[in-house]
Amino acid sequence: MAQAVARVASPRRAEMVAAAAKLFSQRGYHGTSMQHLADALGLQRGSLYAHIGSKEELLFDVVNDGADRFLERGERAFNADAPASDRLQRLLVGHIETAIEHLDAATVFLNEWRYLSVDLKELIQAKRDHYEALVRQIIDEGIAGGEFRSDANVRFAARLVLSAGNWTYAWYRPGGELGPTEIGERFAELIIRGLTLKKGDR
Amino acid sequence: MAQAVARVASPRRAEMVAAAAKLFSQRGYHGTSMQHLADALGLQRGSLYAHIGSKEELLFDVVNDGADRFLERGERAFNADAPASDRLQRLLVGHIETAIEHLDAATVFLNEWRYLSVDLKELIQAKRDHYEALVRQIIDEGIAGGEFRSDANVRFAARLVLSAGNWTYAWYRPGGELGPTEIGERFAELIIRGLTLKKGDR
Repeated sequence: MAQAVARVASPRRAEMVAAAAKLFSQRGYHGTSMQHLADALGLQRGSLYAHIGSKEELLFDVVNDGADRFLERGERAFNADAPASDRLQRLLVGHIETAIEHLDAATVFLNEWRYLSVDLKELIQAKRDHYEALVRQIIDEGIAGGEFRSDANVRFAARLVLSAGNWTYAWYRPGGELGPTEIGERFAELIIRGLTLKKGDR
Repeated sequence: MAQAVARVASPRRAEMVAAAAKLFSQRGYHGTSMQHLADALGLQRGSLYAHIGSKEELLFDVVNDGADRFLERGERAFNADAPASDRLQRLLVGHIETAIEHLDAATVFLNEWRYLSVDLKELIQAKRDHYEALVRQIIDEGIAGGEFRSDANVRFAARLVLSAGNWTYAWYRPGGELGPTEIGERFAELIIRGLTLKKGDR
C-alpha cells in the first residue's frame, strides 16, 4: 500500500510523456484511452487527471519534445564550422540518430501530430518550418560557396533530406545490419552526390 | 423508407473500402469504430456486419488495394523499354501520382498497415518487398549498363526513392504549386543525378 501511494505521488511528467509516446506509437493517438495510460503508469484514472489536463496535452508534450530534439541536433549541425556538404551530412545523421534513439516519440511526432488541435499544430508547424529552413539554408550556402551546383532545386533537395530522415522510422528495425549513423551517412552520400558540382558541370 | 432499404442493399464493397480508407486515414485504424463506418455508409451497425466480417478485413482491403495500385504502376515503369534513369523516374512519378490520387488509401497503406495481424501483414510485406526489388533491379541494370556509377549503394538508393515517394503523403496538400507529376520529376532528377556517371568519374 505504501508502495502504491508512493507510485501515485511520484510519476514525474517525463515518465508520463514516455508512457504516452509508447502507447500512442503502438496504438495510435485515437486508439489510446486515458485508461490505457493510467494502466501503463500504474495509476487510477482519477489520479492521472490530477497530473495532466487531457490526453491532447500529453500528445503535445510528446510531439513538442520530439520537435525540440530534432531542432537541437539540427542547429548543432547548422552551426558547425564546416563545408556545407559536411553540415548537411551531420544534420541528416543527427536526424536519423535522434529518430531511432527515440523511436516511439519520433513515430508520434511524425505521424500522430496531425491529431493536434489547430492552435497546437501551428506551434509545432513553426518548429518544423524552422527546421526545414535550416536544411534549405545549408544547401543555399553550399550553392553560394560553389560547393553545390547552382541549378540544384533547393526546396526539393531539402525535402529529400527530410524524407530520407523521416521515413526511416517506418522501416528501421533495431538490431539490423546498420546503425543509425551508418544509415544517415549512406543517405547523405547519395543526396550530396546529387548536389555536388562535378568536372564538366558549370 | 424505400430509399433507406435501397441504401442498405446497395453499398458495394468498393464503397465500403473507400469509406474505410477515409475514416482510417482521418482518425487512425484504432480510432475508427464499426459505428463510425456504419454512420459514414448510412447503414445500421448490424447491416454492416452482413457485408464485412470485421474492421480488420476492411483494413486489409484498403492496404491490399493500395499495394496493388503501387505495384501495377511500378511494374509498368519497370517494363518500359527505356534507359534505367528513365524507368526510375517513371516509377517515382507513378508512385507519387498514385499516392496523391488515392491519398486516403495511401495514408492507410503507409501508416495504418502496421495494425494488421501478423499473417495479413506478411501478405502485404511480400508485395512491398517485390516493389522494392523492382526499384533495386532498375538501379542494378543501370549500373550494369554503365549508366549509373558502379559504386552506388543500390539498397540505399532504392530506399531513397521509396522515402521520397512515401513521405509525400505526409506533406502534400492539394492545390499546391506543383502537381504530383512535377513533384516526382524533381525528386527523380536529384536522385538520378546522384547515381549518374559524370565525366571524370570511373
